[in-house]
Parts: sequence; C-alpha cells; structure tokens
Amino acid sequence: MKIVIVGASGTMGSYLSNAFEKEHEIVRAGRTGADVKVDITSSYSIEEMYQQIGAFDALISTAGPSFVGPWKNLTAETFRIGMDGKMLGQINLVLIGQHYINPKGSFTLITGALTHDPQKNFANASAANAAVEGFVRAAAIELQNGIRINAVSPTVIEASPQYFPFFPGELPVTMKQLEFGFRKSVFGANTGQVIKPY
Amino acid sequence: MKIVIVGASGTMGSYLSNAFEKEHEIVRAGRTGADVKVDITSSYSIEEMYQQIGAFDALISTAGPSFVGPWKNLTAETFRIGMDGKMLGQINLVLIGQHYINPKGSFTLITGALTHDPQKNFANASAANAAVEGFVRAAAIELQNGIRINAVSPTVIEASPQYFPFFPGELPVTMKQLEFGFRKSVFGANTGQVIKPY
Repeated sequence: MKIVIVGASGTMGSYLSNAFEKEHEIVRAGRTGADVKVDITSSYSIEEMYQQIGAFDALISTAGPSFVGPWKNLTAETFRIGMDGKMLGQINLVLIGQHYINPKGSFTLITGALTHDPQKNFANASAANAAVEGFVRAAAIELQNGIRINAVSPTVIEASPQYFPFFPGELPVTMKQLEFGFRKSVFGANTGQVIKPY
Repeated sequence: MKIVIVGASGTMGSYLSNAFEKEHEIVRAGRTGADVKVDITSSYSIEEMYQQIGAFDALISTAGPSFVGPWKNLTAETFRIGMDGKMLGQINLVLIGQHYINPKGSFTLITGALTHDPQKNFANASAANAAVEGFVRAAAIELQNGIRINAVSPTVIEASPQYFPFFPGELPVTMKQLEFGFRKSVFGANTGQVIKPY
C-alpha cells in the first residue's frame, strides 16, 4: 500500500512512518525533513504535493498547528492559526486529495480529546479538532469510489511529556495505542468515525 | 435585561426578537434591517457594533452563512464561506464581545444537528457547527466574571420548509422549541452546553 504521511517529521508522524514502512511504501511529507515538501496552510502547496506524489492508497495526517496559550491572547488574529492549520489545512488535504487518491483509498486525520474535554490554553485546538470531526462525518457520506475518511483522536501522547502539565487527569496515550488507532482507520473498513485509541 | 440579537432580521432572529422584547430591551443587529449594522465576517465591524451598543447582558447569535451545495462544488475556496461566517464570525462575537458584556452575562450561539447527523450538501455547516460547539466547551472554562456561553443546536426549523427535503427523517423543531432552547441558555445558569431544543 502506498501511504502518504503528512507531518512525517513530527513526533507522531515519524513514529508512524517507521512503524508502517516495514510493510508499506511510505511517502513522507511535511514542511521540513521530508521526501515531499508541503505547507498545508496553502492549498496551492497541497495541490503541488499531490502532483508530485501521484496516485496513492492512504493519506495519514498528523499535521496541524494551532494557537496554544493564555485565553487573553486568543484573539480574532491568533485564532486564525488553528483555523488555517489544523482545521482548514487538514480539510483541504481531503478536498484536494480526493482527486488523486485511488478508489477504496482512505484519509485519516488527527484530532484530539480537546474536542469534548477542553483544557485551559487550548480553545483554538478544541474548535479545530471539533471542526475536523464534523467534517469527517459529513465527508464520509459524500466521498465517491469507496473512499473512506476517519479521524484519530488521542489525548496527550506519551512521547510529548512537555504537555503533561497542561492535561491534568489525562492518562497519556502510548505510541503503540496511537499507531493502532491509525491502523484501524487505514486497514479497516470504517468510515466517518472518530477513533479514540485508548 | 439588555439582549443583543445578531441576525435579527433572519427567520430565527426575528422570531426571538419578537418573543423576548415583551420583557427585555432588545438590540437588533445584522447586515440589513436592524438597529445596528454588523457584518460578522469582519472583526472590525464586530468591534464597531459593540462600541455602538455599549454594555449589555446577553448576546444571542442566529447568524452565520455557510456553503450549501453539491459536494463537487465544495472546494478550498467555498469552504471559507462557513469558516469565515458561521464559525469565525460567531467565535469573534465572543472573543471581542467578552470585553463589552456585563459580569454574569451570557453568549448563546447557533449550531445545529449537522454536527453529528450529517446530510448531503451541508459538510461546510457540519464543520462550522462542530467548531462552534468545541469552542463553546473550551470558552466556558476560560471566560471570567461569571460570563457564560452555550450553543443552541436545532435540527431543521419549522419556519424554513424550503429545507425540509434536505433533511430526511428530521422532525422539524418548532419555533417555540427553538425559543425555549435560547431561554434555557440566556436565563438559566448552565455554561459550556450544547442545548438541543427537541
């Protein structure tokens, strides 16, 4: 299976790339340190990425900046960070990528428990995650040719201990759990689901 | 109570304005036919609106354009309609309005069942609604001075029969049910809730 991983140089993306490359052809995409450069905040850059890659069977996204910081600094301007990044960036990966993906292919996007379990400093990610999950459910009834779409929604992940203090009461998701969440989406048959890998 | 209703000339906004004006001071805001003009896709216009209105006790939003139409016409460009309108428009009403609202005031935004029950042609609204609901939950733990925030999430409403064919299997929400959903948010004590008025 030819699998595109967007955000491949990040903590989650590099783990998943390594885990899946034993059995699959992996195309690493990202802003830096990847096979194919892409800035998901630009639909032009996304289109270019897909033209470089050609047909593929699955896309995994672990990408998406959002604004993290005190509520008083969350303004109409800073809110745009998560909207253009984690939200529209990932949604555009699908809206554009549907024209390049093979029949019966799949898109798997990253969201997070903040959708329903907010934490201070992360309102921008709560909104972006929720939007992606709403989009996933809606896109699942629209996509043609057996193309599937799901989101994987972890809590804080064990490989990012710097975030632990911001997520009181959240048992970190192990990297193996995270990997298996993505496995369920990519190699299973579900669509329109928000997969909680814990 | 001084209540600002944004989208006051729309189907929902005019009903709510009439229902609430018997007992409260209503400020009708909207793009047209309102006491105060506002274009919620512009944070500058929102700021101007609040400066005109001064302190208030509750804001109700029934405003928010989104792209409705065939999936094939949903692109990176058309997706922006719901993002700048129903999503960021309503979110900016809160981010900016929190500096004008009285202590213990409330914001009540409009979402809809499409968040969890998608229908064809409405993926843009599914994402926008979901984002607003994620934001509402997150903002509820951040807002200061006892300020509350909720969303009201109806299905298709009885006063908009032109939408019935697009919502098979959805029992239309009556205008009285809708009104009482907003009453629960404005006059109750809940915060961070998505109120389903059915």
